[in-house]
Amino acid sequence: MKKLLDHINFPEDLRRLQPDELPQLAKELREFIINIVATKEGHLGASLGVVELTIALHYVFNTPNDQLIWDVGHQAYGHKILTGRKEIFDTNRQLQGISGFPKRSESDYDAFGVGHSSTSISAALGMAIASQLKGEDKHHIAVIGDASIASGMAFEGLNHAGVTTANLLVILNDNAIGIDPSVGALKQYLTNVKKGTEKQDNIFEALNFDYSGPIDGHDLPLVLSELKRLKTVKGPKFLHIITTKGKGLKQAELDQVKYHAPGKFDAKTGELVVTSGNSQPPKFQDVFGETIVELALKNENIVGITPAMPTGSSLKYMMEILPDRAFDVGIAEQHAVTLAAGMATQGLIPFCNIYSTFLQRAYDQIIHDVALQNLPVVFCLDRAGLVGEDGATHHGVFDLAYLNCIPNLVIFAPSNAIALRNMMYTVQLGIDFPIAIRYPRGRGHLLEWKLPFEKLEIGKGLCIKKGSQIAILSVGTLLKTVEDAIELIEDKEAIGYYDMQFVKPLDEQLLHEVFKSYQAVITIEDGTIVGGFASSILAFANSNQYKQKIMTLGIEDQFIEHGTVDQLHLLQKLDSSSIKKQIETLLVEINNR
Amino acid sequence: MKKLLDHINFPEDLRRLQPDELPQLAKELREFIINIVATKEGHLGASLGVVELTIALHYVFNTPNDQLIWDVGHQAYGHKILTGRKEIFDTNRQLQGISGFPKRSESDYDAFGVGHSSTSISAALGMAIASQLKGEDKHHIAVIGDASIASGMAFEGLNHAGVTTANLLVILNDNAIGIDPSVGALKQYLTNVKKGTEKQDNIFEALNFDYSGPIDGHDLPLVLSELKRLKTVKGPKFLHIITTKGKGLKQAELDQVKYHAPGKFDAKTGELVVTSGNSQPPKFQDVFGETIVELALKNENIVGITPAMPTGSSLKYMMEILPDRAFDVGIAEQHAVTLAAGMATQGLIPFCNIYSTFLQRAYDQIIHDVALQNLPVVFCLDRAGLVGEDGATHHGVFDLAYLNCIPNLVIFAPSNAIALRNMMYTVQLGIDFPIAIRYPRGRGHLLEWKLPFEKLEIGKGLCIKKGSQIAILSVGTLLKTVEDAIELIEDKEAIGYYDMQFVKPLDEQLLHEVFKSYQAVITIEDGTIVGGFASSILAFANSNQYKQKIMTLGIEDQFIEHGTVDQLHLLQKLDSSSIKKQIETLLVEINNR
Repeated sequence: MKKLLDHINFPEDLRRLQPDELPQLAKELREFIINIVATKEGHLGASLGVVELTIALHYVFNTPNDQLIWDVGHQAYGHKILTGRKEIFDTNRQLQGISGFPKRSESDYDAFGVGHSSTSISAALGMAIASQLKGEDKHHIAVIGDASIASGMAFEGLNHAGVTTANLLVILNDNAIGIDPSVGALKQYLTNVKKGTEKQDNIFEALNFDYSGPIDGHDLPLVLSELKRLKTVKGPKFLHIITTKGKGLKQAELDQVKYHAPGKFDAKTGELVVTSGNSQPPKFQDVFGETIVELALKNENIVGITPAMPTGSSLKYMMEILPDRAFDVGIAEQHAVTLAAGMATQGLIPFCNIYSTFLQRAYDQIIHDVALQNLPVVFCLDRAGLVGEDGATHHGVFDLAYLNCIPNLVIFAPSNAIALRNMMYTVQLGIDFPIAIRYPRGRGHLLEWKLPFEKLEIGKGLCIKKGSQIAILSVGTLLKTVEDAIELIEDKEAIGYYDMQFVKPLDEQLLHEVFKSYQAVITIEDGTIVGGFASSILAFANSNQYKQKIMTLGIEDQFIEHGTVDQLHLLQKLDSSSIKKQIETLLVEINNR
Repeated sequence: MKKLLDHINFPEDLRRLQPDELPQLAKELREFIINIVATKEGHLGASLGVVELTIALHYVFNTPNDQLIWDVGHQAYGHKILTGRKEIFDTNRQLQGISGFPKRSESDYDAFGVGHSSTSISAALGMAIASQLKGEDKHHIAVIGDASIASGMAFEGLNHAGVTTANLLVILNDNAIGIDPSVGALKQYLTNVKKGTEKQDNIFEALNFDYSGPIDGHDLPLVLSELKRLKTVKGPKFLHIITTKGKGLKQAELDQVKYHAPGKFDAKTGELVVTSGNSQPPKFQDVFGETIVELALKNENIVGITPAMPTGSSLKYMMEILPDRAFDVGIAEQHAVTLAAGMATQGLIPFCNIYSTFLQRAYDQIIHDVALQNLPVVFCLDRAGLVGEDGATHHGVFDLAYLNCIPNLVIFAPSNAIALRNMMYTVQLGIDFPIAIRYPRGRGHLLEWKLPFEKLEIGKGLCIKKGSQIAILSVGTLLKTVEDAIELIEDKEAIGYYDMQFVKPLDEQLLHEVFKSYQAVITIEDGTIVGGFASSILAFANSNQYKQKIMTLGIEDQFIEHGTVDQLHLLQKLDSSSIKKQIETLLVEINNR
């Protein structure tokens, strides 16, 4: 059968179709997404849920002149396919391929780069106000999910938009789930709106929006007619649509959490491709998730907090076993941190688990509510360092720098699962300071990790092996790469290496030993060189008048794109082979001096 | 006449009074606040507005066992006076005196340290949940103003609280003003609630709170009876009270913005003490405020944004003259930054003016929405460096460090008003990167500043005077202190000094000249040494194998308390006399080598 999608490369092609052809196109677009994501992996459920909306928006509105912003962007695959990227969609999330998120540099149809949630209303409002000032007659549309709209930033955008006459349409894509099921009072309220038990004159009308809905977001004719009507309404307006995440793939509808980003699966049956991973080392998130349960069962002061990442952080294990003491607060990083601070004042031991990149959302709260009051909050920063396919919006590379300048805060970067586990054990024995424990996405290298707990000494680094010429000072899991690099070097005896463990406070005693014993020093970290571990070592050397050459390895001062973690480490010269070369260069330099 | 207040030092004294004595106490408490603030200065209006509420809360609730959190804390003077600090209230905001904000280390009655807005609900909820887990029967009360509750973080707190059974009372102190008049759709909505034009089943009930009000917050018997009733209600509840900021001092009621923190005034008449300041240099905020008007009148692409600080930032001048292009978005730093990003995509030139300390609230938005997309947003960071009497919560000392690690971002610290003005002129000629321009609270030293505009070269430092032995590299307004220090030195010729202007990018050409010419280098900045300008200079020296001694002056790795800016600079050894001594020490060291 001839496919409609074959002839559609851009929205102008789409707009030549008859309205009654669009449901067929929706069917084809779903199949296209499923077929490619089944083998190339990526975010599935969200895009399947908005296939009809995507088609309707590009059909009714004159994109890219009218500006369309997808909040977060997980749901924008259909949008990408219909806006010039169908042929390269199979490069999605791959190195040099298209980004998994809308991105301005990739297409004029991507009006605003996204990745983190709840930015769309503010950005669209900024564009809408600009259009007003320039006297343009454009439409500006933000599509935002029910999990994202509950985040404080979205409220700030709505609150401002409601007192403007900007030509802004906010579409609430209400599927009652973000990555995990949505939570919070607003979610309950929306459920009541859907049931019809809430009267009109609702919360969005209270904020001065012209509200319509809720309507079935999979009913294409209905969505089309509503969008056409809204096109004629001036000022801020709000359309509430109900969709099903994963729509069109049975398994994805049934298990929406798993099929958010399911990995490889059978495009026909939807069955997941099972990878034989019995003997793999655990993911760091599971080391966290299992360990907090183990500790919390014995220490009743422990509580766990996640802003909307119970699955991704593996706090879900604790939520299942100790539901009263484990909290998913929704996409609310600011609240999560200050909630933890409040709990800490009462003698609880809050483990506040936030992805490194998302902790940027709570920076003031770390400084103002936690560190200034020196409260013993335990920050567990998952997805620290390069995260791979999610790319520039999600790399957790700034944390060492932005945390380093905060007084009172201890910063710990375990080199393996055992160290993570032991630090979690150590802090719940009692600390009188806040601490950030940062660890990467994915798996470590240790199969045997559930060993008896050992208490760690705060601020203590480890000499792994002494050497004669160069000392490598490592923080975090790149230590394994350093070990692999040294294995490749002929003159192994020349190289000593150290697991410094703490970025703050530095182990000054150990550093004095190092600087007194070696001709050169290499620092290595999975974070920005500017402001991070390297800068602390440089400051230490300067204060103490050590004059050795110091080579600083880490993330250069640039945004890093997407690709596998291995590919990105290679590009940043943080793979074992590159590190080996850099060590050898330094060795030659020293010995020729 | 015998005063009731004379016999009240703690709430237990207060609770021994008869209810009908409380209005007299309110009168006395107002007088006490007015008399002291009139001569000692401080925040006046907010505390006058909650005198009745303060008395009622401590009368009805069993503080400090019941926990009371004042959002922001400007309104907590009455609270401080009634909780053991009456006799030392005249040391308010002074070095070694009590803090202008509630502070845990100061009193058990200060349940949570505050200063930045909108943290109270999250903190109180954390405490309330902790009490539930511990099986305690306590009350937890957050008092929050209508400006603060419109900030996203407060919404996040409400959204979580609404799905708990925590024993939380949120009191909305609705006076329709923050520091400047409140803005936004929620404010309009609250106005309608007050007028009775909004039906019940309101926005707070939608979030599952047991709502009551609005009631007159100056009607003590009514407030008392309502608090007593609410004490028996379980779960999250919300009391909406209406107050008048500045209540009880006529001028303060009439000009609520000016009397927020009026400086010295006549306690009887309320008349402000006029300081003869005709020939003073302008405040930096006014250099910004006047210059943006001057530029915007000629360049129609310029827009101005402030999150709730039109007066403090002096953006109010532009709001008066060009109201369509100057935006007060309320206490919404996150939204402010992404709104600016949206505007920048459309060719506008947004000047987004945020106090350095409050930009911490929008850290992710700077990285994710502005810098990653390399959008030409102009951040004007007022109140950078030590701010004085507001103390630890408000010092703008982290910005150089937390901005330094962000790729694409240019960081400029003008040494005087002319440089600030010229950079504002330069960026509106057209830039293709984001820039942060940071300048301090208060006045500069130049009387003649409104000179013809000059275009500045991005990344260019200035050699002010060459020397023979030591180079001082300065960023920002401490340059004047450096000049004063050098004036005190005998061997002036030994000292060269440089206004580096840019923290990022560094002027590497100039730095090579410096490091090739001097025996030692001193860096100086009004910000944390960790991660800031000093760390960039150390990294430059290390990369280029310069081995000179580098002395790094700035803010040490600790939180700095309150006091005058001069006192604090003295304590941090950033006054001219301390700098002189440090230069001389270094001179001796070099010459004795």
